[in-house]
Amino acid sequence: MLYDHGRPVKGEFVSTAQPEGGGQSLLRLINSVAVLSALRESGPATLTDLARATGLSRPTVEAAVDELVEQGWAAEHEPRGGRRVGRPARRFAFRADSGHVLGIDVGAHRVLGVLSELDGTTVRTAEARVDPHLDPEARLAEVRDVATRCLTAAGVDRSTVMAVAVGCPGIIAPDGTVTLSTVIPGWVDFPLARKLARSFACPVLVDNDANLAALAERDYGIARDVDDLIHLLIGRRIGVGLVLGGRVHRGYGGAAGEIGLLDFTTWEQSRQLLLGPATGDTTAARDHEVTERLLQRARAGEPDAVGIVDEFCAVLARQAIAMTLTVDPQLIVLGGGLADAADLLLPRLREHIAERCVRPPELAASTVGPEAVALGAVRLALGAADEALRQQAGART
Amino acid sequence: MLYDHGRPVKGEFVSTAQPEGGGQSLLRLINSVAVLSALRESGPATLTDLARATGLSRPTVEAAVDELVEQGWAAEHEPRGGRRVGRPARRFAFRADSGHVLGIDVGAHRVLGVLSELDGTTVRTAEARVDPHLDPEARLAEVRDVATRCLTAAGVDRSTVMAVAVGCPGIIAPDGTVTLSTVIPGWVDFPLARKLARSFACPVLVDNDANLAALAERDYGIARDVDDLIHLLIGRRIGVGLVLGGRVHRGYGGAAGEIGLLDFTTWEQSRQLLLGPATGDTTAARDHEVTERLLQRARAGEPDAVGIVDEFCAVLARQAIAMTLTVDPQLIVLGGGLADAADLLLPRLREHIAERCVRPPELAASTVGPEAVALGAVRLALGAADEALRQQAGART
Repeated sequence: MLYDHGRPVKGEFVSTAQPEGGGQSLLRLINSVAVLSALRESGPATLTDLARATGLSRPTVEAAVDELVEQGWAAEHEPRGGRRVGRPARRFAFRADSGHVLGIDVGAHRVLGVLSELDGTTVRTAEARVDPHLDPEARLAEVRDVATRCLTAAGVDRSTVMAVAVGCPGIIAPDGTVTLSTVIPGWVDFPLARKLARSFACPVLVDNDANLAALAERDYGIARDVDDLIHLLIGRRIGVGLVLGGRVHRGYGGAAGEIGLLDFTTWEQSRQLLLGPATGDTTAARDHEVTERLLQRARAGEPDAVGIVDEFCAVLARQAIAMTLTVDPQLIVLGGGLADAADLLLPRLREHIAERCVRPPELAASTVGPEAVALGAVRLALGAADEALRQQAGART
Repeated sequence: MLYDHGRPVKGEFVSTAQPEGGGQSLLRLINSVAVLSALRESGPATLTDLARATGLSRPTVEAAVDELVEQGWAAEHEPRGGRRVGRPARRFAFRADSGHVLGIDVGAHRVLGVLSELDGTTVRTAEARVDPHLDPEARLAEVRDVATRCLTAAGVDRSTVMAVAVGCPGIIAPDGTVTLSTVIPGWVDFPLARKLARSFACPVLVDNDANLAALAERDYGIARDVDDLIHLLIGRRIGVGLVLGGRVHRGYGGAAGEIGLLDFTTWEQSRQLLLGPATGDTTAARDHEVTERLLQRARAGEPDAVGIVDEFCAVLARQAIAMTLTVDPQLIVLGGGLADAADLLLPRLREHIAERCVRPPELAASTVGPEAVALGAVRLALGAADEALRQQAGART
């Protein structure tokens, strides 16, 4: 598991396969995991349902289910009333509330936390506006505070949190250290995952925010079932998240998608004309209003505003073209605050890309909205929780 | 399985998991595959060795081994002589000669075939020089002929071939049709996989040659254990193969790595100055000599030759930079004929890339040599044979 800190989430699964008598235990583990996985995908199910879904025998399923109930991962439902003669079939369901995960979006101006059950249901959110110039430890304290507020408001015990994932701008090293960030420069070389892990007894993962937005788009948004995807997360700054072959692609040093460096000076100029400085003394609200007015004037056809939008799209398209020629995505998603300007941006980008690419991808605006990064973090944390769950199942068999 | 034509290589595995009694059969299949996989990775092994490697019980391993011997996938070895008292332990080995695969490199001027056993050992190679203007059917006939010559010379029956993989320049659609090729324009829209599959009773796969060179580099060359890799296959033309997250990345429409289109005109000019036209009436030998002389003059410091090499590297670096910023590879490999000019090219490329990339990758020359594409094709075919093997094991249990 990449970007993992805290207790190991892999290894236990493998180490149960001991030479002496390990075969039996490995098979029991495989069966438990198969049944649990079937339970999570179905609604309440009978033993017969589960035998059908897993291809296992009914006695094997029954033993696995009893073990899962004992461990708190499944619960027996009340039998359905009906006209049947004899004892009704026992029905079981996955207990989504048997554990929780936290997803946290840390931006320059905002920290957003989402507490979720193991089936992805949101239990609670909490938000804090933060000063973009906050020092690293103070910003970390805000993150801790948002997490605690989610848990307290929901009445959820911290010990039930099985994984925490944080998204933030910049390049994140495989150990969860921020190695480069123009948006939160104070966090460069800050061992974010390791520090935050002190507040939790579970794995803490850190990932680039655009990667997480791409994950969210694939789970909840316009990119459903898309395995090759580029997500452009455009707010005051631009981040690029890549999903390739169905998995987030971070690159060897976490620096995938740093395409803004391709024509850095030109890009900075055209970006700032439209979006304002990436960091600075302006508040989030003021920046946003300036950009909004400019976009409105472009919609009205005012030549100077149209020129800024044209130039912005030309430079952004050049980056999209370079990435498209490299990885041939099915879809490019325009996300972040500028998704609202898709009417202006997408037709221009489409034209540039079609001119230069032998197989132009589809282009679409994000449909997930401003919680995309936090929801992607929830998704990443759910994956880590799955591993932990497998581990716990393994440790008991 | 991508790029697959011929009989299906997946599906049987899944369909053995029938609701009624399927659990037992599925477990037997899993055991067979686990034992076979352990046998392939080890040398000759005893039942105790195999039980240790798989975590299965000794009786389960014994049943699986007997089945594998009956099916021809494993053979019992003579017991080792020694000082032990009592019956010596039975030893078994994977029969690599129980099946074969064919890897074929189809270029504009050459067709190269490699016949290999299931452990990757080369049994025979065959080569044909071909006219770059050959029509599609005639070129296909050359491919068939090279395959037949491999088999005949080795005395290997065609029915033992479990998979065939072909590498050729251009964009290959998921169904094995060549959709774009500047090098072999006659093959555009040619259903290569489907046509070639008529000569074989096994899966026939087609892939881009640079993708296969990247695979070979990872298995046999400088890129061992590298999961994020860009392979520049430079001969008269340039192909780019990507391995991302340990897997070949082809893109949604097979068009990944078509970075030559980024600055197409500039690229064509600087490429032709160094390498001559990608196709044309010149023979392979003549092109190669012209390039060789030019490289020698650059090594001697002759300004016009140095200028051509400088310009070529500047444009190629721009493509490498765009790809690096997109996917952040660990390593870029310079392969194909120009790998011999690594002394001239690599230092120049390194400098350009370090200037622009926040995390510059390592650069190295290929160490596999001119058989890279064919060996990569063997590797791809071995993967397909593995699937077929799993299927056959499944069908018998």
